[in-house]
Amino acid sequence: MGNTFSFELHGRSGDARAGVFYTDHGPVETPVFMPVGTQGCVKTLSPHDVSQTGASIILGNTYHLHLRPGSEVIRSAGGLHRFENWGGALLTDSGGFQVFSLKDISRITEEGVEFSSHLDGSRHFFSPEKVMEIEHNIGADIIMAFDECPSSTASREVIYAAVERTLRWAERSLEAHHRLPLHFGYEQALFGIVQGGIHRDYRAYCAEKLVAMDFPGYAIGGLAVGESTQQLYDISRYTASLLPVDKPRYLMGVGKPENILEAIGAGIDMFDCVMPTRNARNSSVFTSQGRLNIKNSAHRLDFSTPLDPACTCYTCTHFSRAYLRHLYKAGEILALRLLSLHNIHFYVNLVAEARRRIVDNSFLEWKEETVHAVAGKA
Amino acid sequence: MGNTFSFELHGRSGDARAGVFYTDHGPVETPVFMPVGTQGCVKTLSPHDVSQTGASIILGNTYHLHLRPGSEVIRSAGGLHRFENWGGALLTDSGGFQVFSLKDISRITEEGVEFSSHLDGSRHFFSPEKVMEIEHNIGADIIMAFDECPSSTASREVIYAAVERTLRWAERSLEAHHRLPLHFGYEQALFGIVQGGIHRDYRAYCAEKLVAMDFPGYAIGGLAVGESTQQLYDISRYTASLLPVDKPRYLMGVGKPENILEAIGAGIDMFDCVMPTRNARNSSVFTSQGRLNIKNSAHRLDFSTPLDPACTCYTCTHFSRAYLRHLYKAGEILALRLLSLHNIHFYVNLVAEARRRIVDNSFLEWKEETVHAVAGKA
Repeated sequence: MGNTFSFELHGRSGDARAGVFYTDHGPVETPVFMPVGTQGCVKTLSPHDVSQTGASIILGNTYHLHLRPGSEVIRSAGGLHRFENWGGALLTDSGGFQVFSLKDISRITEEGVEFSSHLDGSRHFFSPEKVMEIEHNIGADIIMAFDECPSSTASREVIYAAVERTLRWAERSLEAHHRLPLHFGYEQALFGIVQGGIHRDYRAYCAEKLVAMDFPGYAIGGLAVGESTQQLYDISRYTASLLPVDKPRYLMGVGKPENILEAIGAGIDMFDCVMPTRNARNSSVFTSQGRLNIKNSAHRLDFSTPLDPACTCYTCTHFSRAYLRHLYKAGEILALRLLSLHNIHFYVNLVAEARRRIVDNSFLEWKEETVHAVAGKA
Repeated sequence: MGNTFSFELHGRSGDARAGVFYTDHGPVETPVFMPVGTQGCVKTLSPHDVSQTGASIILGNTYHLHLRPGSEVIRSAGGLHRFENWGGALLTDSGGFQVFSLKDISRITEEGVEFSSHLDGSRHFFSPEKVMEIEHNIGADIIMAFDECPSSTASREVIYAAVERTLRWAERSLEAHHRLPLHFGYEQALFGIVQGGIHRDYRAYCAEKLVAMDFPGYAIGGLAVGESTQQLYDISRYTASLLPVDKPRYLMGVGKPENILEAIGAGIDMFDCVMPTRNARNSSVFTSQGRLNIKNSAHRLDFSTPLDPACTCYTCTHFSRAYLRHLYKAGEILALRLLSLHNIHFYVNLVAEARRRIVDNSFLEWKEETVHAVAGKA
């Protein structure tokens, strides 16, 4: 094993791309939705459940895993794949988004960020070098460079400074990544993150500098943090156009199903979002015909309709809306799991269907219809 | 279908019995542990999970299902089997234990019990006739007569009055059961419940009268409510000896693994208890080598030991104690499910092993060793 990460394009439809990248934990067909497993599991789901949704890669959050159980514990377990018994590919973020969200309890210097744990107030320090050490301990197949994530309401000056620092930290991340040992014998591919807010000139500058560093893949950070939907689409499309054709592009933290479909149309390959699991725990369900709230009394006596008649997940093939409504209203934990399972299945398979449409070059027409359907009320 | 409920004995070892009873939802080998599915699911577990533990019959609670979603809703769904998608056998209790536990908000007359919902304070009335109507709406394979469950600290006089009322209500339950339609085409077998507290003369009197009514099975109620363990064993054994050899005997609400093994030795065939699921949600795990608490720091770096090395459940074949401890401490719902799955698997398979030991007549020796092992600290 080692140096197996590579990306191939299998088809295009407009700017949308169908591809595959190879990791030592299996191939990942793109575009791909990556369920979020913040603390070492996708919330409420076993790895068997996650596999059943068709997911081939999931996330872990460096910030959360650093605080608990600690990356040394995960390293001792043989890495996160073994710790959580996930046989597919893994990606860890850099913790940047989380620590920069802890506004009042972070101290930012050129060296790095000092912050307090949201769990117990203990003090911690993240630098590019420290984050690379943690991400090596965790052992994901794809790891992210440590970046500065300014607030979406920040001034141009603040955004510019964040771009410059992100570039310096990208160099330091790269250097540390190459210096540090790979603990588990398989490759970890380090991706760079393009910052620059909603400013095209900064995005262009940041992308140009990162491309020169020759990362095996690139993420677009600093979106889905309060800008308009149109800005999200415009900046995604613009930034994607600046990135190498032969490397995967990852739009971090996006989003609603219709956002993901539009971003696929803009040339993005990889997505993660907590919406399918978080919304499920709040009774909100995604379907091919739009959103529904399972608490709604309209479902009380609906014994014959699954959450989504078009869905093949365990929840939809075994349970009625009436039963799921009952479980949810009765406070049964099983409800959270069955809704999470469905929502993840929906996201993963919506993106897989987008891939099929790209390959047979019917993506654009399909996307227009589908965006309309999934964004409405079921 | 219809009139298929029957019980056969396959072996004995001392007073312990191995048998089988037949329902329209499959045979149930006894002794048997029946997981509790209070509100229409075994807490945290899907029916697939429950099947994987080896369980062939589960409970529903009439009190809880009457309040939410309401038995008419379940009847409209086609019965509880279809509502919750459980293909095995089902048993419902009568709600007696629950409504008599609502001490301050119940009014008891010869006609029945008026009580307030613990959910919203709404007033409800349970009589033998009403409970039979509800249990017919729910549609379990085995249903329980409505009985009076006095407090374990009640006087002899109160216990005696409860026995007499339980007998009158048993007659009324039987009459209503025979009068009411079976909504789903399959048989529902009505069991009588022997009350009498820790008083042998009352148990003998109650058993004699109920046996004369010729129920297809008998439960022993009013135990596991505060008496000593020795009293539990003595009264179980004594009451079992009063019941027909050719009918199943069900000790309601018992208990710890060692209690169940002793009660099997006393001639009991059926058990239910919330301990495996409730304890799991409180981090307490049952194993073949005794109890353990998964939060214990001793498990922090134990990446190679499952909860119980002798166990074949999904949890034990996929996850380490260190990982489960992490999930539990991190507040992940998945922890509650993985521990519940293991505990139910442990209970179901401990009782299944007892059955094998009865059939090959090695039960008594095995029970002595096993009671000692399971009651200790792992």
